Amino acid sequence: MNNIKNRLGRDIPQELSGIGTLRPYEHPDKRTERCTALNDKLCCGKLVSNLREAILNSGLSDGMTISFHHHLRGGDYVLAMVMDEIAALGIRDLTLCASSLTTAHGCLIGHIKSGVVTGIETSGMRGALAKAISCDCILDKPVIFKTHGGRARSIESGERKIDVAFIAASCCDNMGNMNGCTGKSAFGSMGYAMVDARFADKVVAITDNLVAYPACPVSIPQTMVDFVVCVDAIGDPQLIGQGATRNSKNPVELVIAQYAAQVMIGSGLVKDGFSYQAGSGGISLAVARFLKDYMKENNIRGSFASGGITSAMTNLLEEGYFQALLDVQTFDAEAVSSLLKNRRHMEMDAQMYADPASKGTVASCLDVMILSATEVDIHFNVNVLTASNGVIMGALGGHPDTAAGAKLAIVVAPLLRKRIPIVVDEVVTISTPGDNIDAVVTERGIAVNPAHPELEERLIRMGLPVCSIQKLRDMACQLTGIPEKPRFGENIVGLVEYRDGTMLDVIHNVLPFSS
Amino acid sequence: MNNIKNRLGRDIPQELSGIGTLRPYEHPDKRTERCTALNDKLCCGKLVSNLREAILNSGLSDGMTISFHHHLRGGDYVLAMVMDEIAALGIRDLTLCASSLTTAHGCLIGHIKSGVVTGIETSGMRGALAKAISCDCILDKPVIFKTHGGRARSIESGERKIDVAFIAASCCDNMGNMNGCTGKSAFGSMGYAMVDARFADKVVAITDNLVAYPACPVSIPQTMVDFVVCVDAIGDPQLIGQGATRNSKNPVELVIAQYAAQVMIGSGLVKDGFSYQAGSGGISLAVARFLKDYMKENNIRGSFASGGITSAMTNLLEEGYFQALLDVQTFDAEAVSSLLKNRRHMEMDAQMYADPASKGTVASCLDVMILSATEVDIHFNVNVLTASNGVIMGALGGHPDTAAGAKLAIVVAPLLRKRIPIVVDEVVTISTPGDNIDAVVTERGIAVNPAHPELEERLIRMGLPVCSIQKLRDMACQLTGIPEKPRFGENIVGLVEYRDGTMLDVIHNVLPFSS
Repeated sequence: MNNIKNRLGRDIPQELSGIGTLRPYEHPDKRTERCTALNDKLCCGKLVSNLREAILNSGLSDGMTISFHHHLRGGDYVLAMVMDEIAALGIRDLTLCASSLTTAHGCLIGHIKSGVVTGIETSGMRGALAKAISCDCILDKPVIFKTHGGRARSIESGERKIDVAFIAASCCDNMGNMNGCTGKSAFGSMGYAMVDARFADKVVAITDNLVAYPACPVSIPQTMVDFVVCVDAIGDPQLIGQGATRNSKNPVELVIAQYAAQVMIGSGLVKDGFSYQAGSGGISLAVARFLKDYMKENNIRGSFASGGITSAMTNLLEEGYFQALLDVQTFDAEAVSSLLKNRRHMEMDAQMYADPASKGTVASCLDVMILSATEVDIHFNVNVLTASNGVIMGALGGHPDTAAGAKLAIVVAPLLRKRIPIVVDEVVTISTPGDNIDAVVTERGIAVNPAHPELEERLIRMGLPVCSIQKLRDMACQLTGIPEKPRFGENIVGLVEYRDGTMLDVIHNVLPFSS
Repeated sequence: MNNIKNRLGRDIPQELSGIGTLRPYEHPDKRTERCTALNDKLCCGKLVSNLREAILNSGLSDGMTISFHHHLRGGDYVLAMVMDEIAALGIRDLTLCASSLTTAHGCLIGHIKSGVVTGIETSGMRGALAKAISCDCILDKPVIFKTHGGRARSIESGERKIDVAFIAASCCDNMGNMNGCTGKSAFGSMGYAMVDARFADKVVAITDNLVAYPACPVSIPQTMVDFVVCVDAIGDPQLIGQGATRNSKNPVELVIAQYAAQVMIGSGLVKDGFSYQAGSGGISLAVARFLKDYMKENNIRGSFASGGITSAMTNLLEEGYFQALLDVQTFDAEAVSSLLKNRRHMEMDAQMYADPASKGTVASCLDVMILSATEVDIHFNVNVLTASNGVIMGALGGHPDTAAGAKLAIVVAPLLRKRIPIVVDEVVTISTPGDNIDAVVTERGIAVNPAHPELEERLIRMGLPVCSIQKLRDMACQLTGIPEKPRFGENIVGLVEYRDGTMLDVIHNVLPFSS
């Protein structure tokens, strides 16, 4: 056996059968691995003095992919400040991989035109940016729209490599431990950002609330963070809470909500231990109120509610109607404080929420999912991405993920909006396949997917206004006339990716005067 | 552009410039991805009826690597029941990768002799198993001893691939969400198991407390778990808490503790925001008491305490002496309930604790670390792995990790134990390199590493009994005579790996009559 002495003078065999080659110990890492100034914020290894320094240290260069989360929603300052700094540094040809894009991100129009951003992947897009891409074709490559689960899948699988993730945190320490539920810009769960942090090559934490080590709680740990930057403000608290809940008094919405609650009850799923998710729209919130009444009367205790969490859901948790909340995104300040103080209000990442490649998603554990729709067609296909005029104005979010996972996926929508029919022959853009939709509930009638005759039977026996989806389409058209089809151009400005990475649909540019 | 229609009839280009090949949407995943019986524990996908079924479903076969955690310490039933089932299935030639092995794991002797286990990686080993390996050479390949940080590094890097991780949980739901701080067998933090769960190919959760979905809190999420098995008991609550703290009244230990506290104070590190870690031994706990008195007198508030957490530390947290606890392993029932109820008592995984390849460990953020020693030599090298007679009887744990990371690493040990000198010319086995040790504190004197003359100066000025390490060695030998050296054989029964994967030392078999 051929030995060599290591630095401490011990004999180490160079090779051992069944073990292989051995490397002798050489040097201590005491100097190299130590954080020299734990509590001196100004000279800790990860803390850099400004965004420019963080970008330079990250090694960001032309052609790379960067990522952002949208937990600050319409109040986000971070994407704009990072992109401006990147542009000032002359870095170009970047692919921007965002969990979603909001009205706060109009600045991207300029960065696209100047060639700083040449590719975009996102769950959704709104406002001026969406219009410029839909109508003015400012981006050469089509935007790839991914569901929250599909995005997590593509990042986890390596299909979408992120070079540098820029992560806004309302609370962060000098080692990069962060959370989103404390600080002046608190936004709640960091669910979408957690996946970026885990898989990105370099991670830059951006905060306006640098706290003494260690931050508490820790949503994203220091083990995933390379640099920490402190800025004046990461967002506008007013707009961060834009998801704020509103209690609908709209009679049409209330009728739809009541019908939806009846469909849930009719399905037989509303029993002890059942699970529920809904959006933050007026109808969804009204559904929750009717649901609560029924649970109260029948002394039913649910298992969990999930997804984007509003104070409506945190109230149900506190009142014991549900045993837990699984929160991937927090919509209002009251829900943020619940996340901080209520152990049963649990933060989850996008993988746990909806990644179809994970070992089991919360979406797939759902009993009932209440879904919105911009359009729904006679094949039950849903559009939540483009307006009836074909212009991009929405987000896939977790819509296709939860529709696929939930035992009962109910679309709630008025028959008309601004004299535009919502139930149509064919949706402009398919964002969720009709196979995954079980029922469409409008104020004028309820259509059940023919795949579920037993459900239709039950609802009819309950005396609910059940009719075919074609009947709903006809009623809508009788009220408004056949809607004019959008005039599309030849350019593909968007690709709609299903959660498994396959292509559901393409979005073409919209020609002038069609809106 | 060559289009094809997807299953929904939409035209999808087969190829797009700048994007690549596109796959058309084919089928909904509603049937396939849904959990059919969320609240029916008996027919959920992951829940299997017994260990045998879980092992068979995991695909475990000859030559693979399996892992276990040691959070149940001396009370662990799980490793034994899993190994017995594996043996009964006739699976052989397995490498066992455990975070540590305790007196509860004597069953491995039989499984090694029968060829079921042919390789072992662990942080430590005790009792009959350790003696059989040291003296009887029952294992052909040497045991590879890894630090807690080094183990995480090797798993994260892929250097150590785990095929099937068997993870004991005191609370788990039917999807595999689990924690260790609730239930009859509660043990606290799952810090070491978290790394296995994240990187193992297949993960089997084993619990004696199957709860309704979702478990709360979630230490290891369902996204990492393949199978769930419910058994009668995962451990013996009495022995799980064996780390229980004892307040030393031993005058020698109290003198050592008081000196150690003085060294900390003399170093100048004990100021607002300082961080601290110590073991659960009598001396360490006494140090904490003296430290608390000093902090109280001088109104000092520490930053965090970390590592294995005892109720002594949770009391300091509750009394405000520290702002947070970072807990990779919980030593007693009182500390377990603190982890459950106190937000500032935070669970951390082994990567965050000590993985030198992570983006920043807690170990490297430590100001002061109090370390134990079985032996320490005149080069400040420490042995915590073998007895003076050369027989394996200890564990590396996080000893080398924290010694490397902490600004001040103090070894506390009596000059003698059972008339055996502790300070010697050369330790039998090097488990922590002397370069990372700053001071050795005994009841008869304090030796400072010559690398830190400024510290030595300060301690002398404080009137502390400072002397050379050689002087300590001489005092010990004068009291006991030159200790007899163990008689080693030619077989290498253990390899001591430094946290970076290099070899610190080898452990030879011990010949009869030498103990």
